[in-house]
Amino acid sequence: MNNFEIHPRLRADCHIIARLDLSHLLLMNNALLPWFILVPETDAVELHDLSREDHTRLTDEIRRVSRFVQAHFEIEKLNVAAIGNIVRQMHIHIIGRRTDDFAWPGPVWGRPEREDYEAAKLEELKGAFATFQTAATTGR
Amino acid sequence: MNNFEIHPRLRADCHIIARLDLSHLLLMNNALLPWFILVPETDAVELHDLSREDHTRLTDEIRRVSRFVQAHFEIEKLNVAAIGNIVRQMHIHIIGRRTDDFAWPGPVWGRPEREDYEAAKLEELKGAFATFQTAATTGR
Repeated sequence: MNNFEIHPRLRADCHIIARLDLSHLLLMNNALLPWFILVPETDAVELHDLSREDHTRLTDEIRRVSRFVQAHFEIEKLNVAAIGNIVRQMHIHIIGRRTDDFAWPGPVWGRPEREDYEAAKLEELKGAFATFQTAATTGR
Repeated sequence: MNNFEIHPRLRADCHIIARLDLSHLLLMNNALLPWFILVPETDAVELHDLSREDHTRLTDEIRRVSRFVQAHFEIEKLNVAAIGNIVRQMHIHIIGRRTDDFAWPGPVWGRPEREDYEAAKLEELKGAFATFQTAATTGR
């Protein structure tokens, strides 16, 4: 998609982790829990406004990121959600939850708890996702 | 799926609206906003644990219910989410949000505001969904 730009609010709140087929993979700058966000390159606001083909591509990317979060972090449950009440640009939250995290069992949106990622941790995560992605693509 | 039963907590909180191909369509008993829940007949807990085929069927049902909510209610935004921190049986929330609803722009989960549906309103909604469903299936 030409001239696509990630919404300034998402850019301010997140780190960019990877470019997938349809989406940009972001990581919320909150080291308290693994909080990923997929931003598909689309003007559609609601999921059902995506073409069925793009929705399938997005679903595949959600599955891949979900598997990564489950493989890489000690988590109890995934929360997968398209909300967009504040930032209307389509974005899908994929959040790994633990029974001892700050909001359990409530949702994390709107909660103030926050802790910046350290640069080293961020680089490690980027590398881990790239490795996971390569393994998934080549079927290793 | 043999012997599938909707989780008692969901049965207690919701009305049953329709049986779709993969899922049961429920309506949260909260007339303050249109809050639908799809419960696919599966033992999988996370979306990515569904077979790709079942995930596609579920996606189609999410698209259908989303379109119904958008067609039938005056809403500003849809919230679509698989959370399941409390009830682990897979269920997908499809909620129509308005800028004047009780939680906007925050999420609705965990909020106490509640108002029972009147029986007549419930029957009207069931009928409207059945009509929508038939129209979608026959391509009218």
